Formats: sequence, C-alpha cells, structure tokens
Amino acid sequence: MASRSTRRPTIRDVASVAGVSASTVSKALKGNYSLRDSTVERVRQAADELGFIPDSRGRALASGRSFTVGLITTDSSGRFSIPIMLGAEDALSAGEMALVLCDTRDDPLREQHYLKALVSLRVDGIIVTGRRVEPREPIDVPIPVVYAFSPSTDPADTSVVVDDHAGAAAAVRHLHTLSRKRIAHVTGPESHLSARVRAAATQEAASTTFAGPPLYGEWTERWGRLAVDVLLRDHPEVDAITCGSDQIARGVCDRLRELGRSVPGDIAVTGYDNWSVMALASRPPLTTVDMQLEELGRRTAKLLLDAIAGSPRPGPQKLPTRLITRESTLGT
Amino acid sequence: MASRSTRRPTIRDVASVAGVSASTVSKALKGNYSLRDSTVERVRQAADELGFIPDSRGRALASGRSFTVGLITTDSSGRFSIPIMLGAEDALSAGEMALVLCDTRDDPLREQHYLKALVSLRVDGIIVTGRRVEPREPIDVPIPVVYAFSPSTDPADTSVVVDDHAGAAAAVRHLHTLSRKRIAHVTGPESHLSARVRAAATQEAASTTFAGPPLYGEWTERWGRLAVDVLLRDHPEVDAITCGSDQIARGVCDRLRELGRSVPGDIAVTGYDNWSVMALASRPPLTTVDMQLEELGRRTAKLLLDAIAGSPRPGPQKLPTRLITRESTLGT
Repeated sequence: MASRSTRRPTIRDVASVAGVSASTVSKALKGNYSLRDSTVERVRQAADELGFIPDSRGRALASGRSFTVGLITTDSSGRFSIPIMLGAEDALSAGEMALVLCDTRDDPLREQHYLKALVSLRVDGIIVTGRRVEPREPIDVPIPVVYAFSPSTDPADTSVVVDDHAGAAAAVRHLHTLSRKRIAHVTGPESHLSARVRAAATQEAASTTFAGPPLYGEWTERWGRLAVDVLLRDHPEVDAITCGSDQIARGVCDRLRELGRSVPGDIAVTGYDNWSVMALASRPPLTTVDMQLEELGRRTAKLLLDAIAGSPRPGPQKLPTRLITRESTLGT
Repeated sequence: MASRSTRRPTIRDVASVAGVSASTVSKALKGNYSLRDSTVERVRQAADELGFIPDSRGRALASGRSFTVGLITTDSSGRFSIPIMLGAEDALSAGEMALVLCDTRDDPLREQHYLKALVSLRVDGIIVTGRRVEPREPIDVPIPVVYAFSPSTDPADTSVVVDDHAGAAAAVRHLHTLSRKRIAHVTGPESHLSARVRAAATQEAASTTFAGPPLYGEWTERWGRLAVDVLLRDHPEVDAITCGSDQIARGVCDRLRELGRSVPGDIAVTGYDNWSVMALASRPPLTTVDMQLEELGRRTAKLLLDAIAGSPRPGPQKLPTRLITRESTLGT
C-alpha cells in the first residue's frame, strides 16, 4: 500500500512540524509541564499526525529496566506450556511488559544459550515452565525468576504448581455424591510423578470404595481401551473409573461402549486435563479435572511482576483445580 | 541457593578483578587488539569468573537495531499458530534474534495496542499469523512485516501460505494409485476458504471418479460420523473418502467401523493436518496431509531476516504440503 510510510518518523520530524526544538518535543511528550500548554498541545498534534511513537529504550535506559520478561519452556509440543504462556502473556501485557519466548526443546545447551541471551537483552525477569510436574534444577541468573508447573528443586524459589492431589480427590468425592461404591483408577506411567500423585490421592479419597491397585500404563487412548479389559476381569463389580488423563478416559469410554456397558449407567468415567478436543469429542463427553493452566500462567506473571517490583514471595504455591461435570458421570 | 548471586556483575567488577580500567574491559571484550594479549586474556578470565555478560542494548543502540522480532497472532487456542511460532522462534534464535509474543485474541483494539508497543520496543520486524487462511488487512508499521498462514490482502506484501490445492490433490492421486474409483469428500463449513479450496482441488483431481458434491459441515468428529450415513445413502458404491481435517476423518473411520465397513478394505480414508493426537489415535491411523507449519514458520522468519537486512522478497509464496501415508489407505 502506497499510503504506508517506509521511514519511521523521528523526534526531529515532530520538532520540525511543531516548530520547536527536539528537546522541547521530548519534554512535551514526557508531560513536563514547565512548558506552555499550547506548546505541549502543538507537539502532541504533530506527533499524532506523523504517527510518531517515542522510543521505549529511553524509558528502559533511564529506569534501568527493559520492560520485557523471558519465558523459558522445554515443551515444544505445547500441551501444558501453551495455556500457561498465554495466561502469562495476558497478565504481562496488562502491565505493559513484553514476553520474549524461548523454546529450549529439552536441550540443556539450548537453555544455557537462551539464559545468556535473555540476561544480555536485560529482561527484567524470567518465567521457567516445562512439560512435567517433577521439580527441576533452578536456573542461575541474577534477576527474578518464577517457576510454573515444573517447580524448582530449591524450596526458597517461587514456584506455582497445580494441586493435583486435590484435583484427583475432587473427582472421587463427586463419584461418592453419585453413590458410586467401587472406584477404579487407570493412569499413565508409574515413573511420572503426576500419575503417582493422582493415584495416591484417588486411593486415599476412595478409601474402602477403592477397587485397586491403580492401573499404571501410558497416556494414550489405546491404554484406556486395554485397561478396561483388565479391570473387568479383576473387578467385574466396578461402577466408576477415574482416569489420569482425558485421552485414557476417552479410550475407556470407547471400549466400554464396544462391550455394551453404558456410561454412566453401568460405569461412570472421569478424565483429567479438560483438554477440550478429547473431553468434548469423547462419547459421552467427559467429566474431568481442569488444571486451570491459563490462570496458573497469570498468577506466575503477577508473582514475577511483584518480584521485579521488589516484593518477592518465595516458596512453592499450589493453585486449585476445577472439576468440570459432563455426561460421563451425570448422564443425559 | 546461597551460591546464586543476587546482584548482576558490572563492567566495574570485571575491571576491579582484572586490575584494569572499565574502558579497557569494554575494549578487550569487543576484541580490540590494540591491547596486549595478556590484558585481553586477564579481562576475559575475570568476566568468566564473575559471570559478566555484556549489555546487548549497547550493540542495539550502536547498530540501530534491537535484535528482537514481534509475532502477532490472533489464535489463542494455537492449533495452527503454535507450530508456526515454534518454527519462527527456531530460525530467529539461530540468527541470535529474540521473539516477542503478542496474542491479540482476535481483538482489533488489542492488536493496535500491541503494534504500538512493538514499534516502541523498536523491534526490527514483525511476523503476523492467524487461525484462518482467509487474507487479512495489512498492518501499518514502518518496519518489515511478513504474513504467515493468513496472507495480507495487499499482493505487494510478503506472505507465506500453505499450498492447500496441491495438498488436497496429492491425497486424490494417492487414492488413484491404489485404484480407488469413487472418491467422496467430507469437509468443514463452506464459509471457510480452506474448506472450499480443498474441495475444489479434490473435485478437479478426482475428475470422473468424484462422488460429489462435496459434503460441507463442521470441523468435528461428530460431523464425520454423520456424513458417513448421508454418503452411504447417496453413494453406496463409494470406495474412498478424503476429509478436510483429521478430526472429520477420525469420525468417518469410527462410524464406518460401527457399520461393519472395513477401512481401507471397503473404503479408504484420508485426513488433513497430520495432527498427531487425532491422526495416530484414529482407528486405523490416518493417511493425511501435513501442512508443514513449523517449516512455514522457519521460512517466514528467514524472509523477515532478509527484509530486515535490506533484501525483501515481496509477494505471496506457497509452501508445499507433504502426504503422510498410514493404515487408513495402506492397510496393515
């Protein structure tokens, strides 16, 4: 488009149009009211006409801040990091801070490279997030850091994590409300902390109604389908199955339907994640635990802004989950 | 951790440890070889020991560049933007550029706010991406811009888009190779350009083997299941179904299985997107068209870096797709 200018207007262009010096433009746009109102107004009009935008690097150098925050993620596929990132970006942009994205792709060398680059850019702080709930080594930088989802191994660091124990327990309480008496649990690999925490919370909350032991496997629909066969052989009396993920729960529902068992009539099913593409496409749609990751991202950003402003809140913080009820437990 | 310093080491700290002046440190770290080798070595060692990192804002101010690029996305859910963003970030970080992420959430006011913020940050260029292939209004900024996935309505702008026509045609050619003679097409809403382009390409490539008209509906598994019933009533002789998305194709496979029709024995099925969570979880796994979005992101970033370096490549560019073959056409 011909109308789009190819050169950025400078402070000198504004000065020339307003008929004042460049330093007067600078003072006027900073709101220095030692100037006459009419001068300030003339400068503002000239700046508006030309589309002049003051250089934030001046603000940055004067304040010693860059008004940018780095986000380090190890999770290139993004299932968990993306909503956290979007929540953080939302809270930061409300605070007029820009988010610089760094995807380390689980490569420690790449992480080191990014940390150097972020410190060199003089970001005001760093958010570190990952794909697993296992604690991770802290990063070593001389600026504020907040860990999201994957906490720091250092309990003095600020970390914001999901309260998985409460999330899994809420699903069981919901099933008890619906008078379910034999509750099984199907989940991902036992080597994953999130699987172990959810299984332990389920067992504890289900107490004498637990149809154990937990069935550990993979985070896949295929495992959900296979687990149903194992479960119905060992616990034919089961009337509810809580799952460690929506993918597993979807597989469980598919297999139960193939076997002619009604969900939730014969067996109620719950998922975990509220991953809409799975939870809503499941037949029936899934009652599931929402980890509220976008809110977790927002909370992380706010804690980082507090730390940058000189008020850090050290230590881990657990954020509550939310149970979303749908047809897989409530019926139609 | 007590070992982590709380204060960023300054050039004066390095000077003090090396026993030289701050300006000598600055010269030594810039590789000014008017200094003695032993002095340069001493300064480098001191900088390493202290973990001193030079301020890139000096480089930025000296060069008139910020070494940052803004990415504006309208797509908060991220299905298409995320891989584009990751590809762009990968290519930019290789060029030592940082990516500033701006999620407009389809809000024009928010987009304006971000554009001002990015210009104010003095980013060297901007990538604009979205969730739809429909062309969008160009943004008005005095720095290089490249559009990815959603092209600019201005043909003089640099836009990188998916060659959807070739992608849909490749699926049909694959089915012809497998001797399929009656090919139907099930896709998303007719109001979406991507659905219309893929349907037209399918019809053109299938020619006399086309079992039309295209069935427009929604981008859901549910629509895929429903469409099978419509299709088998109107075209009982169909031996292949190409779908406008993997979600639709998954629904098609599920319904065919429920009706006792074998895939691909009776009817071959293809998807579109190569969205692994759908394409691999489908029974059977889907032959599908990969839009190579991460590569599209990389290509976009490279074109932007060229434009920033003074060599823009105006006009739209179509990137090839890739057909991924799996059991839904090849069998086991």
